[in-house]
Amino acid sequence: MPDDPILTTSAARLQAAARDHLLLHFGQHANLRNGQGVFLPERAEGVYVHDAVGKRYIDGLSALFCAQLGYSYGAEFAKAAEQQMLRLPFSTLWNTAHPAAIELAERLATLAPDGINRVFFTSGGSESVESAWKLARMYHVAQGRPQRTKAIARRTAYHGLTMGALALTGIPALKQPFGAQAFEVSHAPNTNRYRTTDADEAAFNQRLLAETEAEVLRAGPDTVAMLIAEPVQNAGGCFTAPAGYWAGLRAMADRYGFLLVADEVITGFGRLGEYFAVAKHGVAPDMITTAKGLTSSYATLGAVLVADKVAEPFYDDGVTLLHGLTFAGHPVAAVTAATNLDIFERDGVLDNVRDLSGHLEMRLRELAELTIVGDVRGDGFFWALELVAGPDGQRHATDRKNELVRRFLPTRMRDLGLLARVDDRGDPVVQIAPPLVATREELDEIVDLLAQALTDADRHFIHGN
Amino acid sequence: MPDDPILTTSAARLQAAARDHLLLHFGQHANLRNGQGVFLPERAEGVYVHDAVGKRYIDGLSALFCAQLGYSYGAEFAKAAEQQMLRLPFSTLWNTAHPAAIELAERLATLAPDGINRVFFTSGGSESVESAWKLARMYHVAQGRPQRTKAIARRTAYHGLTMGALALTGIPALKQPFGAQAFEVSHAPNTNRYRTTDADEAAFNQRLLAETEAEVLRAGPDTVAMLIAEPVQNAGGCFTAPAGYWAGLRAMADRYGFLLVADEVITGFGRLGEYFAVAKHGVAPDMITTAKGLTSSYATLGAVLVADKVAEPFYDDGVTLLHGLTFAGHPVAAVTAATNLDIFERDGVLDNVRDLSGHLEMRLRELAELTIVGDVRGDGFFWALELVAGPDGQRHATDRKNELVRRFLPTRMRDLGLLARVDDRGDPVVQIAPPLVATREELDEIVDLLAQALTDADRHFIHGN
Repeated sequence: MPDDPILTTSAARLQAAARDHLLLHFGQHANLRNGQGVFLPERAEGVYVHDAVGKRYIDGLSALFCAQLGYSYGAEFAKAAEQQMLRLPFSTLWNTAHPAAIELAERLATLAPDGINRVFFTSGGSESVESAWKLARMYHVAQGRPQRTKAIARRTAYHGLTMGALALTGIPALKQPFGAQAFEVSHAPNTNRYRTTDADEAAFNQRLLAETEAEVLRAGPDTVAMLIAEPVQNAGGCFTAPAGYWAGLRAMADRYGFLLVADEVITGFGRLGEYFAVAKHGVAPDMITTAKGLTSSYATLGAVLVADKVAEPFYDDGVTLLHGLTFAGHPVAAVTAATNLDIFERDGVLDNVRDLSGHLEMRLRELAELTIVGDVRGDGFFWALELVAGPDGQRHATDRKNELVRRFLPTRMRDLGLLARVDDRGDPVVQIAPPLVATREELDEIVDLLAQALTDADRHFIHGN
Repeated sequence: MPDDPILTTSAARLQAAARDHLLLHFGQHANLRNGQGVFLPERAEGVYVHDAVGKRYIDGLSALFCAQLGYSYGAEFAKAAEQQMLRLPFSTLWNTAHPAAIELAERLATLAPDGINRVFFTSGGSESVESAWKLARMYHVAQGRPQRTKAIARRTAYHGLTMGALALTGIPALKQPFGAQAFEVSHAPNTNRYRTTDADEAAFNQRLLAETEAEVLRAGPDTVAMLIAEPVQNAGGCFTAPAGYWAGLRAMADRYGFLLVADEVITGFGRLGEYFAVAKHGVAPDMITTAKGLTSSYATLGAVLVADKVAEPFYDDGVTLLHGLTFAGHPVAAVTAATNLDIFERDGVLDNVRDLSGHLEMRLRELAELTIVGDVRGDGFFWALELVAGPDGQRHATDRKNELVRRFLPTRMRDLGLLARVDDRGDPVVQIAPPLVATREELDEIVDLLAQALTDADRHFIHGN
């Protein structure tokens, strides 16, 4: 009912208040003053979101890669939250523990790869990445290797935006206004295979590892504290890793004595059909950073999963772990995460991803028939389609790309009632990451709407209609 | 019932799981292995916390300066959370708004000093400080002053521990293992008046401002992006500001063109009897960082309140605010903050602080009779007692101080059933910051227990008994 006068009055009031009082993250605030307004979700159920004027959208992005269960589990989460709020609404973890955090840590240890049994809680992804860096530094200092002050990350990778996380992030435009880095980071290649000319996957992998090792050697192998990488890199568009890549990183970390950190803020908790995507590669990193799906976004929580080896020096006499965050591991957030894991188990959430990801992939690969779709890549419920200007990966001219990425496609998808992401932090892509509880029919609806939007884009940007 | 066998079995199981799986913030993990265990709150009501073996404590620290309402408002918060979870359990603020965040932003604008009407939400104090820094940088870049890359903070001040916040923090021991800073920070004097020899408060203030200005000049006035200070500085022990100090900082910021940021993560939301402590100084800063008391810690939320002047460039055509945090302004946290403000208004929480802070101060000043108490300072429900070795502020020898601060006092207070903080990031202090709903009798109970602990310390450390 987009024309209901009560809804539109209320929506207009909210738009005006947003314009006058709310600063948006990555906000384009000019839209608030030029009458275009801001996207304003007001209620949601299942995999659908309704905005303040009553228009319905299917959520093809799980909010921002985090609403693993969609939006209809509120009653169950509210009950768990209420019980905790009545018993112990808050306690810190500052040289203090509380049952909700202890039990969640214990449970996460059972889900994590072998040898990873310790959990440092945070309140979100940036804090998890910041904490992993600080834990890595403290580990090396405790081991008598204070000279390990550098990190290796990957080009175009996003690891968060607080100043330490931002240092690791490999997207210059996000860093430029903020000057010097918090610490020295070398950026190695990511696993984008599109447009590469390697003979096969093995050759691709060999080259990636060689170039990564060269970056380690350039930095000075005994000055490197850690290497951080996502199992499937989000920024740039769902770069999956070739076979042998993670085993190669693990071997490299062991050879040179730095820590291997898997950033699973996006890939963790079912996005690829596993609790932790590194499991697919049979590799145990030294730390795993998590947030987002840990609570399916029903509460604000993150966690760094830490290998016993890394944690061990912190148990020495007289050692204090010099890092802390007041709200980290909030009791209500911790029981929310536990409830989330209960639902994952009871409702077979991982199985749903495993059962349907093949169908989703097949449907998305059909879109490669469109000239504008140059590449289709991803895994599980996490996919990107790269948008090109012609055959063989021809790139769009900048003004055409901006028109496509910033105006045409977002507007078209919004009009069609589809929430997905159009992004050009690397080459331009459209990404989908549906809630992990989406049915086959809902996945089809997402792909059908995406097909409509991309067909229009293909017509307009390739065939000039 | 500390000896109840069921409780102790359950507590022993939790202690073992904590030892094996949970990394504590500022944790002294050796205690988990040497049988001493970790402090383990298990339930709470009013201003009292019960640990897992059934021992009761009065919370003289509001958890960590954040449980403004104590622990008995769970039912009311749970109801608000449930309504939000049923309607819209999550939405980001990424170029998107939702009603809960909009309405909270609007409400915070009405509480903030004149000219401060914009809100950038975060998930906690460190993120608020990181965000203030990034907003300051973007503001100056937009104004054509990209050379403003430095910050001024104060010595011994704590502004958080993520790498950007840590750069501002003026406590070398917290920074040392983590190497270079995220950006260049000069540390100016804090407002600790104890042991100073200035003729009077006006002379003290004049000297502080002169030394701060000297630091600005040393850094290069047109290279400074912002100055950050707490209205009452926590680390070091509740340093209040002399009359005229904030007006002086405001004038200095205007004179040299940098932004003035009030870090009210601790002092905000009633700790000093006002929503924002800067109001007591009649000064409007350019930004106010908040967290903790914003939700009375019933949920994980922070906010940067931003002056219209600072936000204005973000409304220009084509500008994108280059910062974002997935969970920031979580809808459930936002309604929690709104409920918190409802309770503040309905239950007269600020009035309680205003009504009882004089009594609290009087009772605490009685403790200055003990030789070991060298100074009593603070405001509202936020007090520190500096611990000395003899008359005229004589300092404890390091080993004696460590014994007092790390073992004797914490153990004694814990045994007595008092939660308070003993801290030596600056000179050693014991701090109390009771829940803002504490009654006169509860404040008396806190001071009485503190008096007992300090009398014992006085006897042992001063008189050698």
